[in-house]
Amino acid sequence: MELGVCYYPEQWPQAWWEDDAQRMVQMGIRYVRIAEFAWSRIEPRPGHFEWSWLDQAIETLHAAGLKVVMCTPTATPPKWLVDSDPTMLAVDASGQPRKFGSRRHYCFSSQSYRAQSARISLAVAERYGKHPAVAAWQTDNEYGCHLTVLSYSDAAQQAFRAWLQKRYGTVDALNTAWGNVFWSQEYASFDEIDAPVGTVTEANPAHRLDYRRFASDEVVAFNRIQTDILRAHSPGRDITHNFMGFFTEFDHHDVSQDLDVATHDSYPLGFTQDFFLSPDEKRRYARTGHPDIPAFHHDLYRGMCKGRWWVMEQQPGPVNWAQWNPAPLDGIVRLWTWQAFAHGAEVVSYFRWRQAPFAQEQMHAGLNRPDRTIDQGGLEATQVAQELKDLGANMPLAPMRTAQTAIVFDYPSIWMAQIQPQGADFNAMEITFRAYSALRAMGLDVDMVSSKADLSAYRMVVLPAHMREDAHLAKRLAESQAQVVLGPRSGAKNQALAFAAGMPPGAFAPLAGLQVQRVESLPPGVHDLVQWANGATSSNTHWREDVASQGATALASFADGKPAVLRNGNSWYSAGWPDAEGWNQLLGQVAQAAGLVTHTLPTDVRITRNGDCLFVQNFSSSPVEFSPSNSAHCLLGARELAPQGLAIWKLQASA
Amino acid sequence: MELGVCYYPEQWPQAWWEDDAQRMVQMGIRYVRIAEFAWSRIEPRPGHFEWSWLDQAIETLHAAGLKVVMCTPTATPPKWLVDSDPTMLAVDASGQPRKFGSRRHYCFSSQSYRAQSARISLAVAERYGKHPAVAAWQTDNEYGCHLTVLSYSDAAQQAFRAWLQKRYGTVDALNTAWGNVFWSQEYASFDEIDAPVGTVTEANPAHRLDYRRFASDEVVAFNRIQTDILRAHSPGRDITHNFMGFFTEFDHHDVSQDLDVATHDSYPLGFTQDFFLSPDEKRRYARTGHPDIPAFHHDLYRGMCKGRWWVMEQQPGPVNWAQWNPAPLDGIVRLWTWQAFAHGAEVVSYFRWRQAPFAQEQMHAGLNRPDRTIDQGGLEATQVAQELKDLGANMPLAPMRTAQTAIVFDYPSIWMAQIQPQGADFNAMEITFRAYSALRAMGLDVDMVSSKADLSAYRMVVLPAHMREDAHLAKRLAESQAQVVLGPRSGAKNQALAFAAGMPPGAFAPLAGLQVQRVESLPPGVHDLVQWANGATSSNTHWREDVASQGATALASFADGKPAVLRNGNSWYSAGWPDAEGWNQLLGQVAQAAGLVTHTLPTDVRITRNGDCLFVQNFSSSPVEFSPSNSAHCLLGARELAPQGLAIWKLQASA
Amino acid sequence: MELGVCYYPEQWPQAWWEDDAQRMVQMGIRYVRIAEFAWSRIEPRPGHFEWSWLDQAIETLHAAGLKVVMCTPTATPPKWLVDSDPTMLAVDASGQPRKFGSRRHYCFSSQSYRAQSARISLAVAERYGKHPAVAAWQTDNEYGCHLTVLSYSDAAQQAFRAWLQKRYGTVDALNTAWGNVFWSQEYASFDEIDAPVGTVTEANPAHRLDYRRFASDEVVAFNRIQTDILRAHSPGRDITHNFMGFFTEFDHHDVSQDLDVATHDSYPLGFTQDFFLSPDEKRRYARTGHPDIPAFHHDLYRGMCKGRWWVMEQQPGPVNWAQWNPAPLDGIVRLWTWQAFAHGAEVVSYFRWRQAPFAQEQMHAGLNRPDRTIDQGGLEATQVAQELKDLGANMPLAPMRTAQTAIVFDYPSIWMAQIQPQGADFNAMEITFRAYSALRAMGLDVDMVSSKADLSAYRMVVLPAHMREDAHLAKRLAESQAQVVLGPRSGAKNQALAFAAGMPPGAFAPLAGLQVQRVESLPPGVHDLVQWANGATSSNTHWREDVASQGATALASFADGKPAVLRNGNSWYSAGWPDAEGWNQLLGQVAQAAGLVTHTLPTDVRITRNGDCLFVQNFSSSPVEFSPSNSAHCLLGARELAPQGLAIWKLQASA
Repeated sequence: MELGVCYYPEQWPQAWWEDDAQRMVQMGIRYVRIAEFAWSRIEPRPGHFEWSWLDQAIETLHAAGLKVVMCTPTATPPKWLVDSDPTMLAVDASGQPRKFGSRRHYCFSSQSYRAQSARISLAVAERYGKHPAVAAWQTDNEYGCHLTVLSYSDAAQQAFRAWLQKRYGTVDALNTAWGNVFWSQEYASFDEIDAPVGTVTEANPAHRLDYRRFASDEVVAFNRIQTDILRAHSPGRDITHNFMGFFTEFDHHDVSQDLDVATHDSYPLGFTQDFFLSPDEKRRYARTGHPDIPAFHHDLYRGMCKGRWWVMEQQPGPVNWAQWNPAPLDGIVRLWTWQAFAHGAEVVSYFRWRQAPFAQEQMHAGLNRPDRTIDQGGLEATQVAQELKDLGANMPLAPMRTAQTAIVFDYPSIWMAQIQPQGADFNAMEITFRAYSALRAMGLDVDMVSSKADLSAYRMVVLPAHMREDAHLAKRLAESQAQVVLGPRSGAKNQALAFAAGMPPGAFAPLAGLQVQRVESLPPGVHDLVQWANGATSSNTHWREDVASQGATALASFADGKPAVLRNGNSWYSAGWPDAEGWNQLLGQVAQAAGLVTHTLPTDVRITRNGDCLFVQNFSSSPVEFSPSNSAHCLLGARELAPQGLAIWKLQASA
Repeated sequence: MELGVCYYPEQWPQAWWEDDAQRMVQMGIRYVRIAEFAWSRIEPRPGHFEWSWLDQAIETLHAAGLKVVMCTPTATPPKWLVDSDPTMLAVDASGQPRKFGSRRHYCFSSQSYRAQSARISLAVAERYGKHPAVAAWQTDNEYGCHLTVLSYSDAAQQAFRAWLQKRYGTVDALNTAWGNVFWSQEYASFDEIDAPVGTVTEANPAHRLDYRRFASDEVVAFNRIQTDILRAHSPGRDITHNFMGFFTEFDHHDVSQDLDVATHDSYPLGFTQDFFLSPDEKRRYARTGHPDIPAFHHDLYRGMCKGRWWVMEQQPGPVNWAQWNPAPLDGIVRLWTWQAFAHGAEVVSYFRWRQAPFAQEQMHAGLNRPDRTIDQGGLEATQVAQELKDLGANMPLAPMRTAQTAIVFDYPSIWMAQIQPQGADFNAMEITFRAYSALRAMGLDVDMVSSKADLSAYRMVVLPAHMREDAHLAKRLAESQAQVVLGPRSGAKNQALAFAAGMPPGAFAPLAGLQVQRVESLPPGVHDLVQWANGATSSNTHWREDVASQGATALASFADGKPAVLRNGNSWYSAGWPDAEGWNQLLGQVAQAAGLVTHTLPTDVRITRNGDCLFVQNFSSSPVEFSPSNSAHCLLGARELAPQGLAIWKLQASA
Repeated sequence: MELGVCYYPEQWPQAWWEDDAQRMVQMGIRYVRIAEFAWSRIEPRPGHFEWSWLDQAIETLHAAGLKVVMCTPTATPPKWLVDSDPTMLAVDASGQPRKFGSRRHYCFSSQSYRAQSARISLAVAERYGKHPAVAAWQTDNEYGCHLTVLSYSDAAQQAFRAWLQKRYGTVDALNTAWGNVFWSQEYASFDEIDAPVGTVTEANPAHRLDYRRFASDEVVAFNRIQTDILRAHSPGRDITHNFMGFFTEFDHHDVSQDLDVATHDSYPLGFTQDFFLSPDEKRRYARTGHPDIPAFHHDLYRGMCKGRWWVMEQQPGPVNWAQWNPAPLDGIVRLWTWQAFAHGAEVVSYFRWRQAPFAQEQMHAGLNRPDRTIDQGGLEATQVAQELKDLGANMPLAPMRTAQTAIVFDYPSIWMAQIQPQGADFNAMEITFRAYSALRAMGLDVDMVSSKADLSAYRMVVLPAHMREDAHLAKRLAESQAQVVLGPRSGAKNQALAFAAGMPPGAFAPLAGLQVQRVESLPPGVHDLVQWANGATSSNTHWREDVASQGATALASFADGKPAVLRNGNSWYSAGWPDAEGWNQLLGQVAQAAGLVTHTLPTDVRITRNGDCLFVQNFSSSPVEFSPSNSAHCLLGARELAPQGLAIWKLQASA
């Protein structure tokens, strides 16, 4: 458990660097990420490298005892570079090349840019790869930010055709897989196939899904060129990439295969404003963020690289990029930091050391203000560092935190739902989040894992939105001892986004013991009452399915008597989109069946188990009380928690 | 009264075809529409025709005793065709050619595509025109779907100039008609005139209206090429086109001049979600559709081809294309089917036989599920077929249903209001629908007719939104015995969308006995109270007019004493946009004056008279009771109707 | 105090002109604006001028004793002209040239169009510059209407580079000012810099601000070419331009430097519907307009040309261009006209004499209807003219009205907030308007002045949204005796839209006695309670700042105890966005400190002092009573005012 920070020496007078480094050390910072946007300073003219400033910056940090996370600067190719070959630029859906003047303007499919990316990565790796201060590498920055994965350049379309040929072999196979007999969409050759944009009405969903898959693979390939270079020239250093929250444009599991550590950028307030939360939630959580947004990402990225993960960018104050940018309440930056450690972070690195007074992100707070005074985020980081130091060996954390409950998260399934929502507000990320949040609200720890993960150790496995049919996964679930929860649309589609063989839930049908015979999306305001066998009631919105039992038993029914939730042995199926109470009922009953202990927590309080420690987090605006058991020992905080308060308890090892 | 179905043999294994045909017959299906999207299978390569599969499909249907509705496949030109001459593609408002990969990507004005359309139509007509199974032809599919009537190709702009020259003769005449002296918009030659897009602020409304008219005429011309071929090569068969509901991009009356039968595609749930209904109505009617949406279209298309009309595509279950796609309640597909027969349909044909498991419409239900099992829609079609058989000769329906009340529906008036709404929510289709719905809620049958129709037999004629001045119509109305109801903006504009001569209501002024001196559109929340002479009150929204009486008498007044509704002999004028109660008051008083018997029906119950039968339809969620008179005899159902219930009564011939 | 009207002889039969002129005189009209859109009639073919009709029109007006406001017709270059050189056309953000067919399609940066503009201006000036009827000139028409200031043509981008070179000297200076080290945005040459459009995410705010500045300067330069010609060829005539309300695309103060009289176009109902008012305000003020919208503009434009200003276009009835276009209540056109005179207008000129029956503005009312009958606006203009005549010398108005309270209005600050709102609803124009409205609601008169104005005579100076740091202004404010009110974000940015030196409020910090340490934008629904020292409470929304006092004292605090409003001697600072009660508290206390007398006015009643007259205006829907003092003498109206009522009181000179 270490703290880090993102630092831009090139943006400040060199005279400040040593003082900055000293103050970082005093604050308890250990890691400093640098240089991910510095290409124009590293290579101001073609082939002319200016290393001296960067050498000096690294030496200054090194001299202070700080560790450096070095970056490849490929997210911001400089003006002279893109002018040298404009085919490097990504092309938008209307056919316009992206223009220079912000960032991420390159096309992942440009072979020309891939060569430049390799050239600069090699240059940086050769110079600093074996420097004793360099502890880790970050490739590029936030792949996919600003919706930049999908490019419609000639290079991308050419590469797409080759990708299709490799996937399908013959164009007839493609025509069959895509169902191109529909609407006379048949192709005679791969050369006829363009990117699925500009059509009169929606392009074939299979076409769109394959373009998404292809584009994701291009990110993987682009990244691998850099990781290969870094491994060769910087042995022993961890390689990471900083993923961005709620981004689904490419498969993060795939990119992670080439990384040692997964890192993510955690902006709880920005995510609360810009994503799917209701207006009431956006208001209520404006200054704390929804308590489960950071945790959701922590648990997701913990599932990427064998449990190794960091927060690379932790929100330290107001940001600039959300629709609205409120300020975190005092104490919440500390709470976020501890929340990350509770969920197993190795490092929490704040973005950024000092707020820039100029350019696009001048309204993004740092640990320090532009006038070099410490800001609230800096004060709270200092507090965390001190607390970490004080607690020391008393914190018996597991090296790799694991839970008894897993959610299976599948990027292709997310893409499928985005391409074919069927109702304007069917959001696979949201339903996954709602299931996760319900588990967290009852005090359960959750692992978010890929469909290929080993599931044998879990007692409960939840697939909130696994639209993609997956016979291998179904087999492993059937063989496991876990209670398995399937959300609506599970297994509904095959790999080409056509109906699963048989009918939904396809390969999951034997597990679920039912067949889905009809689905409907529900406009706002349509609330179907759900009556539970135990007398509880909940409400169903967004989506509903008519299912025919093939062995499953109804646990809850809609008002017309049709089953809303069914159980088939260890398998549970939700034939709709539950509200919070619906998830609570369903997952509560599943937890009981799985032998998991749940808790009745105060509103907006969360608990996280890590090793033999329990972290109690109060995200509410009221003081609350919570203690785990009489035998537990409080390491930090107390039974009473103020708003934004934290307590750490040491449990008996057997607890 | 027959049932039909849309079938795509090319999408299924040939081994299934015979079973499909047998099951259609068992279900009571008589007509099978085929091949409207099959071009890539009929002509997979340029000039290479593959007839054998289609021959076989038709033979299979024929052998089972089914009738075929054959189609021209021009809605989906295949890839090789558009690649051979990309000028066939429509061009969007930003100047981009539409891309291949969905449907309707062609430009109506492309002479090149017209030649191809004629070539393939001729080929199909020559091969199947005299086949004994072929009972009818459908041209293309849903002209205008996905907003495809307006194209901005060079071909379209060239044709527009020629069209203008023909309409105006000289450019001076055009300048005068359009008022081009305004803003120095004068042209020196027809060659200078482009399509009205891309201007800084709105283009001249006259310019826009003429482009709409031109584009509509292009659809008519395109269609006529096909109907001429089909008439020549398939004598004795009905020719139709399947119009789509709520579409107004071209003049359906004009296209119908070249058809024998008008058919339309009826999707009550999709239309309820995607059109102008309020959020509350979208919620309330989510699973039944608004009861008057199907009827509105039935009555509209009955007015196209001398009373001959079909439903070509009847929604059988959830669809895929609306913002939200709920499932019809059990029984409502049966009710929709009977509602169509009540309104005079010759055939109700379901879309589609079996849900496709792939491509764009895989989430669109059919009568059967993708796994070949029968779906709810199939069960209800079976029930209707049995009921039709059971009723047999007991149903004394008129060969061509007619009503005593007419609504005049005028496409150019709709275009005028779309071009010049004057208030963001002034929707001429909506006000027409609201007037229609008020008439239906009081139990009146309605004919929807064009402005050229013979109106002499009606007792009541309503023009809810006839913005276009029409001296000929005014004359016929004045000469008729009918009570005439004029909505706001009636006759306000001349043929060039300029002020009608004199002032509004222009040619209708003598009839209405008033002059409109000022109009205003009203922002949301502005509700003007309307006080009726009989003591009732209603509310006015959206639109209001200040009128000076020239003989008319106020029947209702706004709070400031200005007239809201006026009567001048047999003519009634609404100086605003009434709410439901306002329409009920106005049309109720008119009906009384016309000697029409109205009914107080339970909420969401509708009655339809056809010949000597009365069809009672319960669209509400409650059981209701209704019977027409003591002397009526119930042929089907009963006085008590469950939700989605239907009763058919035989009235005394004199009733 | 004279009335005027806008007239288009070219749109009417010549036979009507003389009658029109006579009726104008009878109505009390003195000024007639003509010819601003008449280029295609003045020069129907290249180089071929048709003067006779215009000669005749002017003679007709002259003969009737009317004065002419002549215009350059450059807002609508005719078709033959733009076809002769399409580089005259503006280019939109997607790179498409604007198309002919409406107005304002030219590019301000086109040297080719500038030459044409000079040529036609010279031709008109030479012909009519010394005509005795010509009293004034208007250049072009409504610069910026339809968002036409920003063009992305090659000409504009070339000119931008030259403009940047002039501003910064070296590209290194530009890189430093813009902070281009951020995201490797550094340029090696001015030639590399494009317009800030089409980037992946937002372009550098400094880049965007400079493009806004550049584009504004292009308008100034374009206008100056015309004013130079007019001054040379039409000596002794006033030159004006008609600015449009709420437009901020260019700096109106800068353009006004070249004018003798500022005029503006006042459309209270259209502005109420189309700008930032709440849905409830749009409903409430639908038919009167918000009472402070006209006054805000009157006071703004009075500050442009040494107090000389007109209303060039006064809304006379419903218009056509707002989202909704309600009709003014009877009496409100009279009230608007008197309101303008109360605020110091020399002339109020109605748009337009007669409603056009054709083209884009056919739904825009005039003083007369299309059928030549007088409309309500004409009746009210007649009434005003009679009242002016009756009052005659009894109206002791000041030649140039001045107030004791000033608002500083700064276009570059508005641009800064538009580029960097930081919260989706932070609107600098709105907060300025809310402050203005609060002052007006307490009966204070307000001057709106530029940041360069002489502030020495004011007792109270309010800077609601002066984001731009301004050391010179700060110095003058510090030296003045005035109470100074600073809104949130005051002085937060330097000239390149980077952080002000030190921290916000930058140069205003010594005045305010505080430092802003953190800011936040607040999503809808977040309302922070503000507790005032005097016991009052108000609510804060939209924006909030954490400030550290450097001498200032808190007058009001947020619920967490942090200061909401601070006072430092004569300086007052709002650390947030107050609601109406918050503004009322703050500005009421400031007024008291300034020794200004405030009034408790009935809701929606406004009073305006001009010379020794007090104008009482009732914009509410209720009758009210108000009288200034026992010694005042009522010149018009009475103590009791009906809705839309007006009273004019003569105060004692010392009052």
